[in-house]
Amino acid sequence: MITLKVGLAERTYPIHIGAGLLERAELLRAAIPGQQVAIITNDVVGPLYTSRLLQSLQGKKIDVFSLPDGESHKDLATWSRIHGFLAEKRHNRGTCIVALGGGVVGDMAGFAAATWQRGVRFLQIPTTLLAQVDSSVGGKTGVNLPAGKNLVGAFWQPSAVIADTDLLSTLPDREYRSGLAEVIKYGVIADRVFFDWLIANTALLMRRDSAALTHAIHRSCEVKAEVVASDEREEGRRAILNYGHTFGHAIENLSGYGELLHGEAVGIGMVMAADLAARMQLLPAAQARAIKTVVSAYGLPTARPGGITAEAMCHTFGMDKKVTDGRVRFVLASRIGQVEMRDDVPAALLDQTLNTDFLCEFNG
Amino acid sequence: MITLKVGLAERTYPIHIGAGLLERAELLRAAIPGQQVAIITNDVVGPLYTSRLLQSLQGKKIDVFSLPDGESHKDLATWSRIHGFLAEKRHNRGTCIVALGGGVVGDMAGFAAATWQRGVRFLQIPTTLLAQVDSSVGGKTGVNLPAGKNLVGAFWQPSAVIADTDLLSTLPDREYRSGLAEVIKYGVIADRVFFDWLIANTALLMRRDSAALTHAIHRSCEVKAEVVASDEREEGRRAILNYGHTFGHAIENLSGYGELLHGEAVGIGMVMAADLAARMQLLPAAQARAIKTVVSAYGLPTARPGGITAEAMCHTFGMDKKVTDGRVRFVLASRIGQVEMRDDVPAALLDQTLNTDFLCEFNG
Repeated sequence: MITLKVGLAERTYPIHIGAGLLERAELLRAAIPGQQVAIITNDVVGPLYTSRLLQSLQGKKIDVFSLPDGESHKDLATWSRIHGFLAEKRHNRGTCIVALGGGVVGDMAGFAAATWQRGVRFLQIPTTLLAQVDSSVGGKTGVNLPAGKNLVGAFWQPSAVIADTDLLSTLPDREYRSGLAEVIKYGVIADRVFFDWLIANTALLMRRDSAALTHAIHRSCEVKAEVVASDEREEGRRAILNYGHTFGHAIENLSGYGELLHGEAVGIGMVMAADLAARMQLLPAAQARAIKTVVSAYGLPTARPGGITAEAMCHTFGMDKKVTDGRVRFVLASRIGQVEMRDDVPAALLDQTLNTDFLCEFNG
Repeated sequence: MITLKVGLAERTYPIHIGAGLLERAELLRAAIPGQQVAIITNDVVGPLYTSRLLQSLQGKKIDVFSLPDGESHKDLATWSRIHGFLAEKRHNRGTCIVALGGGVVGDMAGFAAATWQRGVRFLQIPTTLLAQVDSSVGGKTGVNLPAGKNLVGAFWQPSAVIADTDLLSTLPDREYRSGLAEVIKYGVIADRVFFDWLIANTALLMRRDSAALTHAIHRSCEVKAEVVASDEREEGRRAILNYGHTFGHAIENLSGYGELLHGEAVGIGMVMAADLAARMQLLPAAQARAIKTVVSAYGLPTARPGGITAEAMCHTFGMDKKVTDGRVRFVLASRIGQVEMRDDVPAALLDQTLNTDFLCEFNG
């Protein structure tokens, strides 16, 4: 087991990464000092893992709430049902809410923890690769409104994150690859060596080799933890974690929630961002191509679904959270391993990126 | 104008107290550096004061959302309507939410600010005495569930509080007196001199003398700000602000929201807490009587409405937020100006307090 600290002053918390952690009772009990526990899970992973967790927490007063699976349930109505459940079971301020699931469960359980009696203890046990490398680290919680994703939410740090790599064995292929999109992102934004390692170890990672996976999760969390620690409330630098997400969110939004997985949309978004950066002569064309090649090598789509027009994309940017006073800010790579925030993107070049059928395929 | 600082490290904010502050454009503009503003108000105070506020904020992009008046609208459905409004008007992360109203508006607008795009700037302009001396200071926000008051919410500090004493001139008598209950509370929990001043100045305060009012608000906010600064998230000492509230919340809950005003229930709760403390021989009987006398002198009720049984009160304590692992914790005065947290209240004495018709009327 590797333990990483996310340094946030009095809200500092550990991320434990490794195999078999769900059976390590002493680890779980250290994260839950009180007697009351509410496990929030979903109908898919709940039946697979809840009994192991109950075993490790024997003796505590535990209630389990299971959500239907899927992003379409990440809404205020479902979040409100969690509160009804906590009220009915009389959970008080000393309770601990445990998220056992992927990003949707983590976001919903985290927002419930942030708002139940003005905030209670929260433990994350992510069961997808995406959640292990991304959504369980950094304290973002939220739900979707019809008008957009995560428009309502809170920053609420967990008391600990337990990333058990064994839990990934039951993950469907498509979801697993979707998680790898975020792993690739960390290479692009912060670490050329890691990016090259991802090229060299594609086959190992694609077959979920446990040592390769442990390294990939550890390095991803390290990068994210370092960025989050430097800018907890996303007032500046943390925005680099949104690399690929301005395009990605627009694509996800326009294709209808649930059509594309989040990581798939981010993969396409990273390729579009690489294309735009190359057109701006910020990023060498060869590096833009390398980004597209890696995304493709990990079995992820590299072009947005047909039917999403350039106009629709532009309109959607208008409601994106990264908008400040009317300008759209893009996170763009200046080289692999380094990104910049740019709000001076020439409209003509953005237009080219949105209209080409050959992303990142430049001459020379 | 008097300005008070609530010391909370990077969340430190000023409370400005005085007459005519709504017309002081420079004060308001300093609290709202951005261009987008959402004013949340209600149908009673909105028509009285919104135009003055718009005048002072001329040039900014302002949207106004008015809630129906009353605690019955402090629910998730209304809170969710605020989010729908912010989405429709495209408020981004740089917006500032302004609460123009009493405690309900402040709690709802504050919780909307805490959760809109994971938290935006928040300015409090309280229009009731209760809100000026209590709910606008300290960062508590929340909404009610059918199962209890403020079960859902967040701690979210305003960037400033502007307490304009002129706004109290339109307040109905009963609401004004309800606010005075919290003022009396500050004397009981922290300041014997202030308590004596309240006895000596009952007539002046009851006729809303502006100098007396300014002193009372200032001293109340000072006490509250000092307590909040020492314990922002209510992990310990801040609980003393709940003096009178364990009984008060139960009474409020059982009489149906809206039947009694919050301050009226707290007034009764303070008398019950004084009675219980005297029975425990913690508080001298004469001081318990003095507390009852002051509550009564300010036109507040001193006994709970008929029909609320001792059994119902006990049951309600079970869901109170101050419950830790099954025990009820009471805030009790050991003398006027000093309180203690006690979770060792003998059931027999609590029973006497809940069953007597003569609170605080002891022999000797």
